[in-house]
Formats: sequence, C-alpha cells, structure tokens
Amino acid sequence: MIKTVLIPAEKLKDVFFNVLLKYGFEKEKAEACAEIFTTNSVDGVYSHSVNRFVSFIKLVEKGFVIPNNDPEKVYGMNALEQWDGKLGAGVLNAMKATDRAMQIAKDHGMGCVALANTNHWMRGGYYGWQGAKNNFVFIGWTNTIANMPAWGAVDARLGNNPLVIAVPYNGEAIVLDMATSQFSYGALEVSTLKNEELPVHGGFNVRGELTKKPSEILESKRVLPVGYWKGAGLSLLLDILSAILCGGLSTHEIAQRKIEYGLSQVFIAIDLQQLKNYSGIESCINNIITDYKQSTPGEEKEIVFPGERILKTRAKNLENGIPVMKKVWSEIEGLL
Amino acid sequence: MIKTVLIPAEKLKDVFFNVLLKYGFEKEKAEACAEIFTTNSVDGVYSHSVNRFVSFIKLVEKGFVIPNNDPEKVYGMNALEQWDGKLGAGVLNAMKATDRAMQIAKDHGMGCVALANTNHWMRGGYYGWQGAKNNFVFIGWTNTIANMPAWGAVDARLGNNPLVIAVPYNGEAIVLDMATSQFSYGALEVSTLKNEELPVHGGFNVRGELTKKPSEILESKRVLPVGYWKGAGLSLLLDILSAILCGGLSTHEIAQRKIEYGLSQVFIAIDLQQLKNYSGIESCINNIITDYKQSTPGEEKEIVFPGERILKTRAKNLENGIPVMKKVWSEIEGLL
Repeated sequence: MIKTVLIPAEKLKDVFFNVLLKYGFEKEKAEACAEIFTTNSVDGVYSHSVNRFVSFIKLVEKGFVIPNNDPEKVYGMNALEQWDGKLGAGVLNAMKATDRAMQIAKDHGMGCVALANTNHWMRGGYYGWQGAKNNFVFIGWTNTIANMPAWGAVDARLGNNPLVIAVPYNGEAIVLDMATSQFSYGALEVSTLKNEELPVHGGFNVRGELTKKPSEILESKRVLPVGYWKGAGLSLLLDILSAILCGGLSTHEIAQRKIEYGLSQVFIAIDLQQLKNYSGIESCINNIITDYKQSTPGEEKEIVFPGERILKTRAKNLENGIPVMKKVWSEIEGLL
Repeated sequence: MIKTVLIPAEKLKDVFFNVLLKYGFEKEKAEACAEIFTTNSVDGVYSHSVNRFVSFIKLVEKGFVIPNNDPEKVYGMNALEQWDGKLGAGVLNAMKATDRAMQIAKDHGMGCVALANTNHWMRGGYYGWQGAKNNFVFIGWTNTIANMPAWGAVDARLGNNPLVIAVPYNGEAIVLDMATSQFSYGALEVSTLKNEELPVHGGFNVRGELTKKPSEILESKRVLPVGYWKGAGLSLLLDILSAILCGGLSTHEIAQRKIEYGLSQVFIAIDLQQLKNYSGIESCINNIITDYKQSTPGEEKEIVFPGERILKTRAKNLENGIPVMKKVWSEIEGLL
C-alpha cells in the first residue's frame, strides 16, 4: 500500500512556486510553471506533474533546463514557424508554442509551431485543453529519449513519442493524450509497487514472450508499442516529423546525450471559428459523443471518451485535495 | 490454397481502364482511376485495389460513386480549405485533394484540404507517396462506416479510420498507412480462408475473450482497436476532426446510410523545401533510419520501416506480374 497525503491545490501551487523561485525562475515564469504542474496534478496525471517535479528541479540544477530562457522565432513561412526553445522549461515553451500556433491560425486558418531545443512538456494533454478551451483544434506531438524497441527488436531506439489531439466539447474538451507505448515506465513502476498485473500485455519479458507482469518488462526494457508494429511505425514517423520540421534533435541524437533534454516538438492549431460550418460544430461533436455513449457495454461498465475521467478527478481533487505520495511530498518540501 | 493468376501491370491497368470507360468514366478520369488501382495492386495492397475493384464498380452502378463529378472548393481560410467531393470517385478526389494541399503549402508553408462528401480512398498510402515523392510531408486521414466497437463495447460505433503519415526517403518514401483497428476485415477474411491464426490478438470472441482466431472475430464483429483504449480514442478523434473540419458526415451518420459513401477526409501537406533546414533534412532522415536499422533483432529477422516492404513487392510484381485471385480476376473480366 502506497501512503499518500492530501494536499490542497493552492498549497501545492504555492510550494511549487516557491521552489521555482528558489531555483532561479523569474516570478512570472515561476507562477506559470507552478500553474501547469498544479493543473496536471489536479487533473490526476501525477506521473507527469507532482511525481516528476523533483526530477524537473534536478534538471534545472544541472543546467539542462534553463529557467528564464524564452523561445525565439528562427524562421517563418506563413502558417508554419520554426522556433528555438533555448532549453527553457518544457512546460513554458510548450504553452507559448501553443499560444503562438493559435495566433498563426487566426491569420492563416491553421498554424504550426515546430519547436527545437526544448524540454519535456510533462503532460501533453495540458496544451490540448489549452487549445480546445479557446475553440481551436489542437494536434501536437513530441519526441523523447529512446525508450522503446522497434517492432521485433530488443534494444530501445524509438521514443514513446506522445501524440495529443484535442477538440472543444461541452465547455471543456475531448483530449487524446497518447504515448506510443502501451504503458509508460511510470505506470509499470506503479503497478510493480502495487504488485498488480497489467490489464493487457505491456511488453516482452527477457525470454521474448508477451507479458502482463510489469516487473518482467522493467527487467527486459522491452515495452510494447501500441498496436505492435503499428505504434512502432507511428513513433518513428512522429520522431522524423519532430526533427525535420524544427531542425532539432531526433530520438537517437537525444539518446546519445544519455539525459533527456533538447527535444523536438510540433504544435498545430486550427481556428474553428473561421470555418464555414462553425455554427454546426458543437452539435456535430455532441451527436458523435451521444452516439458513442449509446454503445452496448461489454466488459467495461462505462464507455468513456478520451479526457472524460479527468473532469471527475479534477472535481474530486479540488474538493478533497490532491493525493500525493508521502515520499514524494517530503522530497518536494525538502527542496524549499 | 487460394489460386492466383499473374497479371502484368499494363494488362491490369488496361482492363481497369476499359471497365471504367464502360461504366461511364470520362477518358481522363478512367485513365487516372485505373492508374491508382493498378499502382496499389503493384504495391501489393490487394485488399484496397484489385480485390476491391468489383465492389467499387457496383457503387458506381448504384449511383453512390458518381464517375465524372469533380470536387469543388466551398470555402477558403488561407492555409485551410473546405471542399465538397460531390460523391466523385474517392481515389480521384483524394488525389486532387492531395495536389491542392501541396499547392496551398507552396503559398502558406503548410496546406490543409478538408473534403466532405467523398468516397473510399482505397489505399491511403497512395497519397502519402504522392506527397512525399514531391518533397512534402503528408498527413491525412479518413473516416469510415462504423466497423469497430468503442473500448469495452460490443457494438461497432467507431470507424477503423486510417491515418497516413509520409516523408520523403531515399528517392522514395517512408509511409505509415495505419487503420486504427489492429487488423482489417479483409485481413481477417484472408486469414480465415487460409485457416491461419493471427500473429497477435485481433479482437474479442463472442464470449468477450481476446482471440487470435480470425473466424471468431468475424463472428463477434469485435475487432480490436490498435493499443486497445488508445486506438479507440484515436479513431474517435480522427472521426470528429474529419467531420468538423469539412462540415461533412461523421462515422455514425455514415452508418445510418448502411452503405459506405459520403465520407469525410483531411489532407495536410507541408512544403519541406521552404524550411530553413531543408538542406539538412535528407541526412537527418537517413541518420534516423540508419540508427533504426541497427536495432538488435529479437523474434523478427528484419527490422523494417513503414512502407519498406512495398519496394520489394513492387519490383517483384512489375517483373512477374501481379498475383490476382482467380475468382477476382474472372469477376473483373466479367465486367468488360
């Protein structure tokens, strides 16, 4: 049993903010960065927020994340711009890139920011919500360090490069935030700690057999791409696009650095308000979801759309506080 | 054992062309349409070319595909245009939409054509090659009739909406052409005929158990989304994007028609030649593939990238002729 403490969102944000100030972030940047880490914690994506805050600060300490560097536009070709992230905080760079993609979309119908030399964006879904809440379609992806083998291979040469697609829905959003591995290493570690089996195969063991045992996959490091060869192919293409569109590093180049920094990311926004059919879009999405929800359930009790459970978690965490692992909380407080 | 005959590409194209003329296609359109069906056959994607030609002609006969209708621009917002496919042949509409997306990209860096009211594009990879061979990034997807259950559901309310991503490589292309179901119904039928098991789980049987037996999945109609809940989510988002961006039908509306026609598709092109780093893109992709190919093989003998096997099949089929199932060939000849 993992022991947790319930931390109110304001408290969590306050601690994040003060730690960030201490580690050299300017006030405005500390505020924005703390806001993103807190929102992602409130939304229940702990692996990419509160649980990763300490290692984020370590990257700042070691100079891989440079707190006050702002991204800079390097080149523009109307709807597509190439930016240099200058190794700034990944969450701030990604938030600004999303904003900029929306700005471009206002002028050109759609906009793309390709961002080189940036850092881990933590939870990609954040930028999906950011776009969708402003009435944009958001499509974005990032590459990562090599952490997943190609299909049929034993050594990791692909990233688990997450893909995010978001659209507005019901004042909130439908947000797909999908790594191209079936399970993250974070999820495998949590399941191992809890001594739980995965619901489906999550990788190969050292004997080359598909397995649901997370500890076996942590041992072999052979995580499974989503849909086997398909997710491996998707990961490869997302990495190629990330690297060529911004002129930044690809997964294999990041892997040579051993430490995951200097990533390449792509942010695409489409301005729905300019579409001829804008007035019908809300009902179009509503109708799709209404039909989807009429599915006859099989094994699962509830048929949910991507991002749906977030709203419940958010409400619960705002009311009760955010469940933070005791060990994690004391490490974070230790940074103050 | 399925009996096949080897048909030279020119012969196949000639027969396609003459059948298309007979069924009312103008000469130029018959020529282009025959070319696409032949290329897809030469490239070995038989399920979406020669094997589907007869049912394509049936849709023409029944008036669901209107041979000589040209797509029409409905609305433009600079980098994004909305087009009406006018129920023309899906392959011709998709080819024109890809051309138009590249044209827009020349002016705006990137271009998007959202195409309503079109028909099955057969093999999406064709348009990937079309874009990539012209030095563009191609990203495109289509919705389909409902043919895949949501995650945890038993009834099909999602399409297996394929996603295509392509980049130039070595004078040819790397092309991911990925349905969001693990296996197509075509693949399940072929494996059933051959009495073969699937290499991995392909769906649930009627008892709600994951199975590798294609006949059990054909019985339950519960095909598996790629990566379980992830592919189901991806399919849902691709359908929403398809429908809202062009103002056309969504999967559940197509399903109400019972017959798959009037689809919604999205074509995005990015002009690589305009990028600041254009001169380095070729070596960037080469380096990624070189590293990828250095993977240590596990169970598979060869680590291939998406689209790689196509080149070998193409060379073989151009030399020896295209292996066409005898039954299929006599049906096609019967149309003359």
